[in-house]
Amino acid sequence: MPLMKSWVESANAPDCPFPLNNLPYGVFSTGDDDEPHCGVAIGDRILDVTAAEAEGLITLSDIPLFDVPFWNEVMEEGPAVWAALRARLTALLSEDSDERATVEPLLVPMAEAELHMPFAVSEYTDFYAGKNHAVNVGTMFRGAENALPPNWLHIPIGYNGRASSVVVSGTEVRRPWGQLKGPNDAAPRWAPCARFDIELEMGAIVGTPSDGPITVQEADDHIFGYVLLNDWSARDIQAWEYQPLGPFQAKATATTISPWIVTKAALEPFRTDTPAREVELLDHLKDCGPMLYDIDLEVTLAPEGKPATTLARTNYKEMYYSAAQQLAHHTTSGCPMNAGDLLGSGTISGTEKSERGSLLELSWGGKEPITLDSGETRTFIEDNDTLTLKGAAKGDGYTIGFGDSVGTVLPALADPFARG
Amino acid sequence: MPLMKSWVESANAPDCPFPLNNLPYGVFSTGDDDEPHCGVAIGDRILDVTAAEAEGLITLSDIPLFDVPFWNEVMEEGPAVWAALRARLTALLSEDSDERATVEPLLVPMAEAELHMPFAVSEYTDFYAGKNHAVNVGTMFRGAENALPPNWLHIPIGYNGRASSVVVSGTEVRRPWGQLKGPNDAAPRWAPCARFDIELEMGAIVGTPSDGPITVQEADDHIFGYVLLNDWSARDIQAWEYQPLGPFQAKATATTISPWIVTKAALEPFRTDTPAREVELLDHLKDCGPMLYDIDLEVTLAPEGKPATTLARTNYKEMYYSAAQQLAHHTTSGCPMNAGDLLGSGTISGTEKSERGSLLELSWGGKEPITLDSGETRTFIEDNDTLTLKGAAKGDGYTIGFGDSVGTVLPALADPFARG
Repeated sequence: MPLMKSWVESANAPDCPFPLNNLPYGVFSTGDDDEPHCGVAIGDRILDVTAAEAEGLITLSDIPLFDVPFWNEVMEEGPAVWAALRARLTALLSEDSDERATVEPLLVPMAEAELHMPFAVSEYTDFYAGKNHAVNVGTMFRGAENALPPNWLHIPIGYNGRASSVVVSGTEVRRPWGQLKGPNDAAPRWAPCARFDIELEMGAIVGTPSDGPITVQEADDHIFGYVLLNDWSARDIQAWEYQPLGPFQAKATATTISPWIVTKAALEPFRTDTPAREVELLDHLKDCGPMLYDIDLEVTLAPEGKPATTLARTNYKEMYYSAAQQLAHHTTSGCPMNAGDLLGSGTISGTEKSERGSLLELSWGGKEPITLDSGETRTFIEDNDTLTLKGAAKGDGYTIGFGDSVGTVLPALADPFARG
Repeated sequence: MPLMKSWVESANAPDCPFPLNNLPYGVFSTGDDDEPHCGVAIGDRILDVTAAEAEGLITLSDIPLFDVPFWNEVMEEGPAVWAALRARLTALLSEDSDERATVEPLLVPMAEAELHMPFAVSEYTDFYAGKNHAVNVGTMFRGAENALPPNWLHIPIGYNGRASSVVVSGTEVRRPWGQLKGPNDAAPRWAPCARFDIELEMGAIVGTPSDGPITVQEADDHIFGYVLLNDWSARDIQAWEYQPLGPFQAKATATTISPWIVTKAALEPFRTDTPAREVELLDHLKDCGPMLYDIDLEVTLAPEGKPATTLARTNYKEMYYSAAQQLAHHTTSGCPMNAGDLLGSGTISGTEKSERGSLLELSWGGKEPITLDSGETRTFIEDNDTLTLKGAAKGDGYTIGFGDSVGTVLPALADPFARG
């Protein structure tokens, strides 16, 4: 599919992340009007769809869908409404639209907008479904022979995360304290995390609720869209706490998502297959079509006041399991899924060192410091470092972008139990 | 504290679970009026507080608190409103109330009411904080020498569960399918769970939100109340899936809670200390007052059409960590907590075989079948078995009850992927 041209000129540049082909969904506010509205990115503008609906330009349902500052109401309407909305937005913003005069006053300069969480996270699940990452981490912790757990090739391993800790890009992240115990320590101690890390992931957002097991194809149909996702991880807290019931406080400080939900429809031209299987999957998890996406991913680190260094470049197609397979697995036991459920892919690493999606892997457990462009070195995140995830699918003369997922790590509180 | 007498005569019997000392909070509907209302149990009646507020008998806030069918709005108001509500309800229902004539028409016979979820579960966390249970399970899986994981005596181990799967007492539970692989199987297979189990727990409900680390005392202050909680567990799914990131689908079929939230105020006379510590806890988790409760617990199993057999009796004071310690630990990394967050205590087992809170422990991993009063035997739950949790704190001439937590296990679907 080639570039679809818009009368918003800035949207037609080949490297603009928000062409008419994209139309991602977010929530924004401006200085003029503090109340957050739903918006759609187009070029360097945001279309205020809350206003567009109020003015009767968009009518998809008997009830208003955009009078709340999140996209969950649209998600719950289901795929027919998703398609109708996209068609209507395309008609309004296409270069041959005859409604430009009505629509143009509803555009807000993106540079003047503050972006908020685009949806209310119902529940958050994080998976461990990137094979290169799992092999790297497994090799570090259990040796190369036992790198992959026995179940890894049979199910997309996942654990429930904490929805309350999901924040939008730009939110500062406070270095956590935690209970730590190194392998040679006699006893645990209470201290700030010294091995704070990123995880470069994609997040899939469930749109259609379900109340029992669903197939992989149904799961793909239920997914509303995708975001970039940084699952901040306190490796030292994790090492002490995670046996036997999994990560808990190590993953509860924050998870940062990019501000725009890129819809499945926008990503349709970029579908790719999951990789060849070492072992055949059981029927209920079998691949049934290309359900990964060819999305270039990058993570950068900028020390305070210094330029950013690229830590790694990788691609979403490196995943071993698709989000559809993860969602299908998530429902096997009858677990009810709701609109706004967020599924983290798991860390996405390629096969090369320059493609590793976490500092744990990049510094090989802290043993091999990375040199930044500024000459400084890093094993894990230092205070006031800014970490940024970027993502882009490259089309024929256009780009599908997500908006960066940015977070600056603030120093730990001096004493988290001090009370004002 | 002795029995507080109510003009609702049935509330004054020593074995009535809902005396004036209790006043637990629930949500109910009746045949006459399908819309669920908030209610307070008193004797064999429910006071319709949605109606009482609408009639001006209860005015706690500028905004209505009971026009929604859950108690989260009250929780968010905080301890001063909680205390004011309890004082007002006590005044209305006390035997020396002069408002009986106004209040009596707002009482509904409990026998005619259907009970619903008393609150919207924001997120659900399950702990593993009963020592006898952890020792039993650890001994089965890792041998007596390695029964307790190294971190167990230092932190209340917990994992995030699935809020969407929490249901109220009386909801039928469908036996799940899952991916299973026994230690001697060559490959995993897709089959109905053959080792479906109960976990006898208490659930603590967070009332006051927090947005950073809180102390154990603050955590105790933030807790709104308690319910009985049965964390249904698919042991065979769990065995295959839980390494390395913890239980996932094994715990996602359902978690059943009792229908009445028993407030912290009602349980105040029953506070007990946590046990002596083998190792000193770090300061942020140290005990700072009696934060467990002396609550007798029981679990029964009734095969279809047969009387119930008591499987075990135990007591909430058997816990190693209080809910306050669990909540404090939950916040250490900065994890935001919200009104309606539900914290499962972990399975509560005593030291004796007759005090074990799961079939896994009672049948010692399925090796020692239990004989029921009907002469049948059980290792795990069979289809159409009804499992019931009961709880009661015994006061001076009165009883604080929770209402039973009941669930019948339906046979697995023939083919969960068949579509109508």
